[in-house]
Amino acid sequence: MTFKHRHLLGIEPLAPSDITSLLDLADDYVTLNRTAKHSDVLAGLTQINMFFENSTRTQASFEIAGKRLGADVMNMAMQASSIKKGETLIDTAMTLNAMHPDLLVVRHPQSGAVDLLAQKVNCAVLNAGDGRHEHPTQALLDALTIRRAKGRLHRLSIAICGDIAHSRVARSNIMLLGKMENRIRLIAPPTLMPSGIEDFGVEVFDDMAEGLKDVDVVMMLRLQKERMDGGFIPSEREYYHRFGLDSEKLAHAKPDAIVMHPGPMNRGVEIDGTLADDINRSVIQEQVEMGVAVRMAAMDLLAQNLRTERNAA
Amino acid sequence: MTFKHRHLLGIEPLAPSDITSLLDLADDYVTLNRTAKHSDVLAGLTQINMFFENSTRTQASFEIAGKRLGADVMNMAMQASSIKKGETLIDTAMTLNAMHPDLLVVRHPQSGAVDLLAQKVNCAVLNAGDGRHEHPTQALLDALTIRRAKGRLHRLSIAICGDIAHSRVARSNIMLLGKMENRIRLIAPPTLMPSGIEDFGVEVFDDMAEGLKDVDVVMMLRLQKERMDGGFIPSEREYYHRFGLDSEKLAHAKPDAIVMHPGPMNRGVEIDGTLADDINRSVIQEQVEMGVAVRMAAMDLLAQNLRTERNAA
Amino acid sequence: MTFKHRHLLGIEPLAPSDITSLLDLADDYVTLNRTAKHSDVLAGLTQINMFFENSTRTQASFEIAGKRLGADVMNMAMQASSIKKGETLIDTAMTLNAMHPDLLVVRHPQSGAVDLLAQKVNCAVLNAGDGRHEHPTQALLDALTIRRAKGRLHRLSIAICGDIAHSRVARSNIMLLGKMENRIRLIAPPTLMPSGIEDFGVEVFDDMAEGLKDVDVVMMLRLQKERMDGGFIPSEREYYHRFGLDSEKLAHAKPDAIVMHPGPMNRGVEIDGTLADDINRSVIQEQVEMGVAVRMAAMDLLAQNLRTERNAA
Repeated sequence: MTFKHRHLLGIEPLAPSDITSLLDLADDYVTLNRTAKHSDVLAGLTQINMFFENSTRTQASFEIAGKRLGADVMNMAMQASSIKKGETLIDTAMTLNAMHPDLLVVRHPQSGAVDLLAQKVNCAVLNAGDGRHEHPTQALLDALTIRRAKGRLHRLSIAICGDIAHSRVARSNIMLLGKMENRIRLIAPPTLMPSGIEDFGVEVFDDMAEGLKDVDVVMMLRLQKERMDGGFIPSEREYYHRFGLDSEKLAHAKPDAIVMHPGPMNRGVEIDGTLADDINRSVIQEQVEMGVAVRMAAMDLLAQNLRTERNAA
Repeated sequence: MTFKHRHLLGIEPLAPSDITSLLDLADDYVTLNRTAKHSDVLAGLTQINMFFENSTRTQASFEIAGKRLGADVMNMAMQASSIKKGETLIDTAMTLNAMHPDLLVVRHPQSGAVDLLAQKVNCAVLNAGDGRHEHPTQALLDALTIRRAKGRLHRLSIAICGDIAHSRVARSNIMLLGKMENRIRLIAPPTLMPSGIEDFGVEVFDDMAEGLKDVDVVMMLRLQKERMDGGFIPSEREYYHRFGLDSEKLAHAKPDAIVMHPGPMNRGVEIDGTLADDINRSVIQEQVEMGVAVRMAAMDLLAQNLRTERNAA
Repeated sequence: MTFKHRHLLGIEPLAPSDITSLLDLADDYVTLNRTAKHSDVLAGLTQINMFFENSTRTQASFEIAGKRLGADVMNMAMQASSIKKGETLIDTAMTLNAMHPDLLVVRHPQSGAVDLLAQKVNCAVLNAGDGRHEHPTQALLDALTIRRAKGRLHRLSIAICGDIAHSRVARSNIMLLGKMENRIRLIAPPTLMPSGIEDFGVEVFDDMAEGLKDVDVVMMLRLQKERMDGGFIPSEREYYHRFGLDSEKLAHAKPDAIVMHPGPMNRGVEIDGTLADDINRSVIQEQVEMGVAVRMAAMDLLAQNLRTERNAA
């Protein structure tokens, strides 16, 4: 076991061996979830989900993960909370910290907010998405999905398509897939492509036919309208015509290329609905399934490290 | 044990022997709830409550039922969910399905939505109310309440009174009580009586004195103002005068007739407050108690069938 | 064990020996929370949190307390509930009661509402704050914090400062600290000081320098703007200047005086932020920690009494 981190704040601090360890353990949890469904590796531990942004799927995924591992799980609806009474993020975090949680799962609209919070508490913090910064469990579940579909997680050609500029999913995926030595191709209209992104060792395209040429994996992104503050908002119809994935565009990829989307999907905007449901190409449901397993693995590893640290103290 | 269904979507598909089996098991759970309160028959299973309409009492009842049986229970507040991000009901259901739940409890404002959803998932689905269609656990808890109060569930004369047109409670009850060979009398103003309802083998009245004559059970309904889209809305005062249950109107029923209401009550509109609290006539609190027991029985039976199906696979 | 109450509705009905018993048990739970974190003393029991007012910290504290003791815990968001459908508080309570809960934790905006509810149900009720009336677990956690910091809970000089008129925290603390034979000094602008309060055996001040003179404990209160219906609302700047706690004003207290605040804090209004974070003076985080322990102790004691009562029946 090489995973020696206290928190899971992003992909950036992880070594390739960390990623491999975590995915190996997650594979075991896929099996557990398909059969017995319940373990006690987190029994006696308190997990608090603090979501400052709504998210059905990510919160549900973390909640199921914790409950299946026997943790005492609590959801805090932070919009309805003390924040309204004028309390700062740090005061809220310090208050929860004083209740001795072990695992704090945090989603926050501001980039860097989760890192800041992690410095103030003495439990393990998992970033469930912070602003445009990172969404590490999403990148890990995507990696597990790819590894299971393709048999490996290196030397693949992977296209990430769509609203890259506003996407923490893209950012975490670019880092993870780069660390594992894959070829990454980004495809987006120039207004949705972050400038200087070529420095991360990726290839940049604004045409789907070119960008998708011979790739093994097509990863579509959600149009993050809620994060496009005042900027360019494309017409959905025009966007679909040029950047939405359909069978015709997919034909440029390898014949066995898989199709991914982090959800929730805008059918007919980012992706053709029939293609999304085609179980011969689309692994979108598998991504959700892998999400629970990856979160179980991450919480298991962090809890192990927490126990080691406390026993040493 | 004759209950061989995969889902509990309505009363319509149930045979009388299914109903009897379920009520027999529910009787055992009434005893459990009054004493030890906790069992492990659902241990290791994941129950998700998806409520697309608010409901304190029904959701609480299903949540208590699941927790007392040892399930990992999750509530999804679907109004605040991905639906807002443009996701379809089916995509939301497929996403949750990929997380491997075992029991999905669904309330939805549209008739038929729960049936549709059940076709897409590979777990057991319980309908917690869909539009004007069915609310099977309500009819089952009403049946258990009647059976315990009257000593039998057949050859009774039962009046269902009030807003029948908008009521899934009435619809499920008419089917259940009919299957068990009771005489059903419906009492409502003509605007709140569905046309053609006589075909279900019921008698129809628009006068309480006539309709309540010699009945064993008086089942009042809630005025479903939230479902009266643009139609006739009666004045509450006039409604109470003609159709609200008070001691005077109740005098037309048998001397030992019981009074029921699914709650929440509008006191002084559908029913006189003093009568609702009269423990010699009203079984309204018993209905709530039976609700938890019936839901425990339903989830227990569906989980047994699910395990049998999986072991065979 | 002398604690023989059925409910915890306020400090007022408690004897000094009740308070001591409860705090002694809470001390054990502080140790549990710092180490193993989980016990089964409430296993098989159902705890329902009914919050008619939002509260992140109090609800989270009760939820963690119940889950760590193995109870089946449910949160009811009462704003979104049947109340909107016109149901009365008592009907809602009776409905939940029929589901056989064991512990009902209630917060309500109206003084006396929790007492009224306790008369209608046959389980143990814990008041989590009712209007301007009582907030007993807050006073108990404050007492535990003081006792651990000062080594005793009697013959101390304690200042309670700020919005006393609108504060159930002040009211419960005045009763508890009085019962334990401490000297209580109240400091507030005349508009925020309840008239006739001197009858409770307290000293009254409207000047911080005078009021804080030689005290052992400085207990700051939150400005309850949400409860100041139409009355005097001070300017925050002026308020901080005259009544906000800073190092200069604190210098009038004993050199080892501790600083308390029930949270959430308005930094720069009731208290200087630096002082609030000064771990040599401020015990604000300890208060939160003690809160979980005190609530575990209270629920443990009430559950013991409930079991004794039921076994005798």
